[in-house]
Amino acid sequence: MPMVVIAGAGVMGTAFTFPLVDAGCRVRLVGTPLDEQHIEVMKNGQVHPRLGTAIDDSVEIYYASQLGEALRADVDLVVIGVSSAGIGWAIENLGPLVRTTMPILLLSKGLTVEDGHILSLPEKVQRGLAKTGVPEAMVGGVGGPCIAGELAGRRHTSVVVSFTDQTLVDRIVPLLQTEYYHVAQSSNLTGVEGCAALKNLYALGIGAPQGMLERKGEKEKKVLMHNLASALFSQAIQEMAVFEQVFSGGVNSAYGLAGAGDLYVTCQAGRNSRMGRLLGMGMRYSEAKKKHMADDTIEGAELATAIGPAVKQMFGDGRLDKREFPLAEAIIAAVVDDERLEFAWKRFHRLQPVR
Amino acid sequence: MPMVVIAGAGVMGTAFTFPLVDAGCRVRLVGTPLDEQHIEVMKNGQVHPRLGTAIDDSVEIYYASQLGEALRADVDLVVIGVSSAGIGWAIENLGPLVRTTMPILLLSKGLTVEDGHILSLPEKVQRGLAKTGVPEAMVGGVGGPCIAGELAGRRHTSVVVSFTDQTLVDRIVPLLQTEYYHVAQSSNLTGVEGCAALKNLYALGIGAPQGMLERKGEKEKKVLMHNLASALFSQAIQEMAVFEQVFSGGVNSAYGLAGAGDLYVTCQAGRNSRMGRLLGMGMRYSEAKKKHMADDTIEGAELATAIGPAVKQMFGDGRLDKREFPLAEAIIAAVVDDERLEFAWKRFHRLQPVR
Repeated sequence: MPMVVIAGAGVMGTAFTFPLVDAGCRVRLVGTPLDEQHIEVMKNGQVHPRLGTAIDDSVEIYYASQLGEALRADVDLVVIGVSSAGIGWAIENLGPLVRTTMPILLLSKGLTVEDGHILSLPEKVQRGLAKTGVPEAMVGGVGGPCIAGELAGRRHTSVVVSFTDQTLVDRIVPLLQTEYYHVAQSSNLTGVEGCAALKNLYALGIGAPQGMLERKGEKEKKVLMHNLASALFSQAIQEMAVFEQVFSGGVNSAYGLAGAGDLYVTCQAGRNSRMGRLLGMGMRYSEAKKKHMADDTIEGAELATAIGPAVKQMFGDGRLDKREFPLAEAIIAAVVDDERLEFAWKRFHRLQPVR
Repeated sequence: MPMVVIAGAGVMGTAFTFPLVDAGCRVRLVGTPLDEQHIEVMKNGQVHPRLGTAIDDSVEIYYASQLGEALRADVDLVVIGVSSAGIGWAIENLGPLVRTTMPILLLSKGLTVEDGHILSLPEKVQRGLAKTGVPEAMVGGVGGPCIAGELAGRRHTSVVVSFTDQTLVDRIVPLLQTEYYHVAQSSNLTGVEGCAALKNLYALGIGAPQGMLERKGEKEKKVLMHNLASALFSQAIQEMAVFEQVFSGGVNSAYGLAGAGDLYVTCQAGRNSRMGRLLGMGMRYSEAKKKHMADDTIEGAELATAIGPAVKQMFGDGRLDKREFPLAEAIIAAVVDDERLEFAWKRFHRLQPVR
């Protein structure tokens, strides 16, 4: 029976126990220090309060302090299921404990900047682990439209698992695949991770038409703005494809599950869309955040803050062609420079598809 | 002042007067025999009942019988704005009246089959006109997410205009472009038209999860199916790209406005989604149509009926690789063979992106 250890017992980490158990794995779920309460509740046989679905009895549950104990076994796969804010904790604590031979699968999505260069989270984890004693950790990631609650409800869910090493993909996919969890494959890890992160940023823009509509007078509100939202959706996919081309040297993800697919689900609801709506109403980001979403983590805005300055630098020195990213530029200006969200229409839809 | 004649005064034909007038064209709107009432109403200065927005006073309005009179001028562009069912009327009546030098822009979207080969509507119109006296008509089309009511409300709308001849694209686009009607260009007419039609078919599939959810018991309904809808959306884009590759020799539209963009807007609401929901509830197509949508034109189902047999033949003789179209196959089987809609998951998401 393959053994899988999940570090992080938030909604996604906990939901990930479902396909693993159903695929025949022995699963250990370890909380971070922020998950203490959830761990206690689940240890008492109760339901994870934010997930709302009881995990399988076979899942072994551990407190953060027991991470070493959980990993003391023949572990076939380590899953990092923390939020992107918890990545530091994961690196610091896994470093001394994991062995190079244990593949690591990252559920968190994001991009980070080191020395002016944009890095995917798996790259960040790999570099971090190298500093804490694991020289060449095998870190992969998951992309695609996956709302945790639906996964835990065993709803059909299609994702793409990516490691740069195809033999690892071949080894890991069978540990996850079930009748409802459909796993596609990619060896373009940078592409998958870039799209998985960027879709949050673009969802802010696609949420804006809703707010633009609400700003109008009662009579004018009756004519909706689906055309506009769809145009922005299409532009977002195109821009993701150019990003992917520049960062990974190929376009494998922007048009697939990790790009268009995940962007679609992200636009159905959620905090990015809510913030997009506020920006569309004409609010500045700082005001919208403070007044309406002070306690919310808005992943798209966090990404804009994280990579915005680096992206602007890359526009400046030509590593990215600014003309190709009017939507990303508008969103970054809104979040980073607190400008009002406006679309430079003449620069939209000029792209030929990237191949 | 450029002169544009629109044949067809349904919602889309009538809505198309707005960007034309705003772009500085002189516009003549001619009804089909089915539009007599709408024409009369508008001639009396009233609002098109199905559009709900008053057209500009400068638009000259004609009955179907006056088509010849409307075309008796230096016409810079003829727009065919009929439904796909009205294409026959348009060909028959325009044939004796248009000159080869008048470019024709088709707003209708669809595919048709002649001698076992799938043709786009512009190809059908071109062939039809050749038989009625216009040897080499220059017929182009429009793709992209465009709900007529929003266009008439001057909401931001992004489309792609395509003629096989780039010089025509260059000539026509300035006649249409306004501050709210954003016109991208393509010379891959077959690709644009193929995607513009196929998106209706795929919207049936993407509407199914809503029905699958409703079929569940009250408690089970609480866990939604956005993951599934998004996976189907992603699969649809991939399949459109393969179709486009086969039919046009390139992929220019599936990932852009005519493909992903128009699919997005089509999935927000509409008759294709409603039928998809009924199929997802487990109803057979024949029953769903008869009991719930007897009087509705369901474009995706009409397309499946039109091209389904040809597509199946192409699966059989290898012109299309059946393994690449599990979603189209399921939808065609549901509509053409009245089978229950089911997804062959093992064949999904296996595609590498098509370039």
